[in-house]
Amino acid sequence: MTAELINAGLNFITYGLYLITSSDGERSNGMIVNTAFQVTAQPAQLAISVNKESLTHEIICKSKKFAAMPLCQKTPMIFIGNFGFRTGRTFDKFAKVSFEKGLFGCPIVKENTLSYMEAEVVQMVDAGTHTLFIGEVKDAGVCGQQDDKPLTYAYYHHVIKGKTPKGATHL
Amino acid sequence: MTAELINAGLNFITYGLYLITSSDGERSNGMIVNTAFQVTAQPAQLAISVNKESLTHEIICKSKKFAAMPLCQKTPMIFIGNFGFRTGRTFDKFAKVSFEKGLFGCPIVKENTLSYMEAEVVQMVDAGTHTLFIGEVKDAGVCGQQDDKPLTYAYYHHVIKGKTPKGATHL
Repeated sequence: MTAELINAGLNFITYGLYLITSSDGERSNGMIVNTAFQVTAQPAQLAISVNKESLTHEIICKSKKFAAMPLCQKTPMIFIGNFGFRTGRTFDKFAKVSFEKGLFGCPIVKENTLSYMEAEVVQMVDAGTHTLFIGEVKDAGVCGQQDDKPLTYAYYHHVIKGKTPKGATHL
Repeated sequence: MTAELINAGLNFITYGLYLITSSDGERSNGMIVNTAFQVTAQPAQLAISVNKESLTHEIICKSKKFAAMPLCQKTPMIFIGNFGFRTGRTFDKFAKVSFEKGLFGCPIVKENTLSYMEAEVVQMVDAGTHTLFIGEVKDAGVCGQQDDKPLTYAYYHHVIKGKTPKGATHL
């Protein structure tokens, strides 16, 4: 079984793009992931897959909280680049992005996003290079761009011609 | 925090629709889920969320294998109804659907699907009403409809006006 065939199979999975943020009180950070889905309805639980090398991973492990915000289709590339192609270890990703502190302390960004969900981590699953965080949604709401469509990974690649950073789940 | 607000937040997550099958040698079954994503690239691991009450859940728990096939946008409603709105406990879902047995024994349906991925379960995560199965992709390939687009949950609801069965992750 070649990696090419496996990737050809995996290539048809449909994804959105999400801003994931967390804060441990001292440090706040955010990153873009394409891997988020609702696991159960009662209670509302959300699963996200996060690269272990990322600063956001480190902060979620400490805070046990994260916020997930689906990006809207009109999200400018500079916004995606700010969160998706730089590391928060050497750069303050919130320096030029306005945000509110959520009920559970996570940065909530309402610009270029459709909604926010703030979740408390109830399970952490070690999947090798990534951790699957399962969070119970404790707060949620709609954001400024809720009349726009969600930005899908397919649209990002084929229409905006966006690239995928190293370390992403989906290479 | 009302359930309505939580659902409003979760509503902007982007999903595809997937046929999930498994076989324990004696029984084979399949169901439609909207919850599948790639967890890691190296190795290629796929996570799916499956309702514990479903027959497919019972069979995956026994066989430790599943196949996932993204549906194409042109999938007729009768095909979705066959797998998505009936239980395999009282009805043979493969009676009128052609399939091949995959390398790991799962039924592979190439009609109305874009690709298939056959996976061995490496972790089972109890998430309450659902189990999150994490599988390592062992075989994959493209199917008959690979020139079509993936069927998204949004398209299914808003264009085809499809319904959601009881017990789905996303109510």
